[in-house]
Amino acid sequence: MIKILLVGCNGKMGTMISTVAQNSTTLTIAAGFDSKTEGNFNYPVYDSLTNVKENVDVVLDFSRPATLDSICEFVLNRKIPVVFCTTGYSAEQLNKIQGLSAEVPVFHSANMSIGINIVNNILKTISNTLYKDFDIEIIEKHHNQKVDAPSGTALLLANTIKDSIEAETEFNYGREGIAKREHKEIGIHAIRGGNIIGDHEVIFAGKGEVIEIKHSAISREVFAVGALKACEYVYDKTPGMYSMDNVVNDTIKF
Amino acid sequence: MIKILLVGCNGKMGTMISTVAQNSTTLTIAAGFDSKTEGNFNYPVYDSLTNVKENVDVVLDFSRPATLDSICEFVLNRKIPVVFCTTGYSAEQLNKIQGLSAEVPVFHSANMSIGINIVNNILKTISNTLYKDFDIEIIEKHHNQKVDAPSGTALLLANTIKDSIEAETEFNYGREGIAKREHKEIGIHAIRGGNIIGDHEVIFAGKGEVIEIKHSAISREVFAVGALKACEYVYDKTPGMYSMDNVVNDTIKF
Amino acid sequence: MIKILLVGCNGKMGTMISTVAQNSTTLTIAAGFDSKTEGNFNYPVYDSLTNVKENVDVVLDFSRPATLDSICEFVLNRKIPVVFCTTGYSAEQLNKIQGLSAEVPVFHSANMSIGINIVNNILKTISNTLYKDFDIEIIEKHHNQKVDAPSGTALLLANTIKDSIEAETEFNYGREGIAKREHKEIGIHAIRGGNIIGDHEVIFAGKGEVIEIKHSAISREVFAVGALKACEYVYDKTPGMYSMDNVVNDTIKF
Amino acid sequence: MIKILLVGCNGKMGTMISTVAQNSTTLTIAAGFDSKTEGNFNYPVYDSLTNVKENVDVVLDFSRPATLDSICEFVLNRKIPVVFCTTGYSAEQLNKIQGLSAEVPVFHSANMSIGINIVNNILKTISNTLYKDFDIEIIEKHHNQKVDAPSGTALLLANTIKDSIEAETEFNYGREGIAKREHKEIGIHAIRGGNIIGDHEVIFAGKGEVIEIKHSAISREVFAVGALKACEYVYDKTPGMYSMDNVVNDTIKF
Repeated sequence: MIKILLVGCNGKMGTMISTVAQNSTTLTIAAGFDSKTEGNFNYPVYDSLTNVKENVDVVLDFSRPATLDSICEFVLNRKIPVVFCTTGYSAEQLNKIQGLSAEVPVFHSANMSIGINIVNNILKTISNTLYKDFDIEIIEKHHNQKVDAPSGTALLLANTIKDSIEAETEFNYGREGIAKREHKEIGIHAIRGGNIIGDHEVIFAGKGEVIEIKHSAISREVFAVGALKACEYVYDKTPGMYSMDNVVNDTIKF
Repeated sequence: MIKILLVGCNGKMGTMISTVAQNSTTLTIAAGFDSKTEGNFNYPVYDSLTNVKENVDVVLDFSRPATLDSICEFVLNRKIPVVFCTTGYSAEQLNKIQGLSAEVPVFHSANMSIGINIVNNILKTISNTLYKDFDIEIIEKHHNQKVDAPSGTALLLANTIKDSIEAETEFNYGREGIAKREHKEIGIHAIRGGNIIGDHEVIFAGKGEVIEIKHSAISREVFAVGALKACEYVYDKTPGMYSMDNVVNDTIKF
Repeated sequence: MIKILLVGCNGKMGTMISTVAQNSTTLTIAAGFDSKTEGNFNYPVYDSLTNVKENVDVVLDFSRPATLDSICEFVLNRKIPVVFCTTGYSAEQLNKIQGLSAEVPVFHSANMSIGINIVNNILKTISNTLYKDFDIEIIEKHHNQKVDAPSGTALLLANTIKDSIEAETEFNYGREGIAKREHKEIGIHAIRGGNIIGDHEVIFAGKGEVIEIKHSAISREVFAVGALKACEYVYDKTPGMYSMDNVVNDTIKF
Repeated sequence: MIKILLVGCNGKMGTMISTVAQNSTTLTIAAGFDSKTEGNFNYPVYDSLTNVKENVDVVLDFSRPATLDSICEFVLNRKIPVVFCTTGYSAEQLNKIQGLSAEVPVFHSANMSIGINIVNNILKTISNTLYKDFDIEIIEKHHNQKVDAPSGTALLLANTIKDSIEAETEFNYGREGIAKREHKEIGIHAIRGGNIIGDHEVIFAGKGEVIEIKHSAISREVFAVGALKACEYVYDKTPGMYSMDNVVNDTIKF
């Protein structure tokens, strides 16, 4: 069993990961870290990483950017891999993560679902060819409490498309008024409402036909499943940067 | 058989209407008017309304705002009803149409499909109640040559929702940046691409559930079918303004 | 505060209702009943209804058909209303529930979500008129553990459509082979996969246009919210049978 | 300009191809063949292939299986490539087509749209990996006059999925009654209604996430565009069998 230290174990995603891990035959949560340690855990929980006594094989982080420094110190000391699922890092922090990967295996992805990463690879494969004859638009839907628009995942997909196309394109975040669409536009539309968990849909609209590639997150469980797959993937790797793309490309040849 | 004078008979919609009318057992095109009279017609075509010799029961107009004056003169002379399917009238012209309805029956709708008008009536019925617990967003999709955004039909639906809700709402035509959705927003998103004919979808997103009401135009035939239904409806009416709402409400009690 | 006795409080839906009720300003769970009484509750839990000491205003049942008899006895003794959300009753049991409604207010619906019941009312309003020109098909999607197909909710919607149409129709549960669709068919298609919570979509396909009315359950919370609305609705009613239709029709005039 | 002999030039698809070809800068219809030769053509039309006097580079066939023999004779005599878009061949006829490819380049595909063939290639790439964690279902929608179910294109996609998966799977054409889905099932659901042109959607439903890949035909123009691309592709090839897969794989590396 791969032994995990779960950073942010008392948060919404931490709780989800603990639940999903209970059914795993290959991974187990050996210890947890959180600023709030009260709760119902079947593993010891610490409010300081320096106090962790257990032997652990991987650190899995679903917390806040502020915990980055202590995590770096911890994994450097123990020479073990780390999976970062936290979002919102500064450019400086992203540099630090990059630096860390010279010493230990580091896993970092903008979206932890296997499905989104497969969709992203499909887009990488087909966008340049389709662009000649098809217009491209993205629709994403999230709950009404989300503060950023478009979503980080929509931008991930949009940038994959942009980078794949051998021509100048530009993002358009909404239309009002009198103007025809230019072919170089990639429309990105952010729908917000209720407690929709997260849908992303890419539309290729051509002459007489439309191709749509859609991903729907049904529950946050999907991010927990992906995070545990990442732990399993990175567990025995050599130092370096890894992402969901590596996991996907290990099994699918795009 | 109801005898129709088809104004704009040489245009894309005029051609479609001629085709659809050939299978009708209740209506026939008795004469046509167009600035271009060359073509393959099974009825006489004139380039001036004053030359029309045939007896006609209804005028059906799918042309340009510029023909309004001669149509008004024609139907006032003959005291016959008129169905306006032309779009893009000025406020002054809309006033003239309103005035005309004191003398003859006038049929005028923003969208000639039965389906859109049923959707519009559903929205009128449910929007105010749903608004308490649901966020409302509209997505419309059209071909890449369309110059206006959002579409006239999307605005028709959006205004129906706005007018039904007993609270202040406001339209939002796209989102980019950092800001939470306010409940009073009605998002309107215009997707453009390929030769999509016309889709309109209203999303009610609530706590744990989403209701979607969607209309897709598959071919322009649907507008021809609706226009002929309008001719049949207005044929024996007294002077006044009529719209697709009248046709729909004749058979469905919302 | 309306005081609820929650029957089946230790089940999946019972737990959800307890959570949702904690944020209510009008209702509270005063006591619970379940065969398994162990757990983390903020109200007393009994394994026999005869032991319940608390004063309660409404019984809310999310358990099994087998508990019907003891619930009937309990509400007849106390002369209080009951909301049945349990499914799978025998014809005899449904008769007993009907009989009970002569003595106390009884609330019973095939689906507790407000959204599904609004969709159902829309179908009641439009199906007969649309049937003349449109073919009708239903697609429902659920998780891969569901044993019955089509879903009870799909049948609820299908029967509403069938009962609204003034012509003979018949259900068709799948197509394979060589045969044209007959107009009287109502197709019902059961998709099963992953852990999809529950989607229901009714398609009206006509000449050149399609209307789709879709409901998606995002989380089981929606059934908890509906059940609590039912408690609030039935709380002060006179004896009789009530359903979500009454709740919906109180506010929306279809 | 590549000179095409269009077999079946007076049919619905023949007419569409003539229209689309008029805007081409690389191809032109040099002659037509049809049992009915009356009509409005800008090229000579013959009712017997032996009478064709024009020099042509490719034969494009959108007619009936019965014309196969005379087409084979024609292209063998002239040693030119042929594109077969006719469907419904017998096994014996398919053998004859195969045999013909030893002498001249032969292009034959179950669906002439570029989009469907791209979708088919995506499915070939991802199905085996996704199958481990996802259930697979197909929904196809066509007009109410279609006699076969499921559609040939749905079977094309389903067989691609089946052949890609390294495990036993089986097709299921509809569900009614009490039984859980087995993982090896691939559900195929045929929706029929109105004049829907043709939609195909493949659903991968997993733990907490769903991927959908959808193709919609908006107009039959898409098949004309694909057929002309096939003519251009096969024009300068050596004898052999070719299909849309070759066209797609020339530009996209899956």
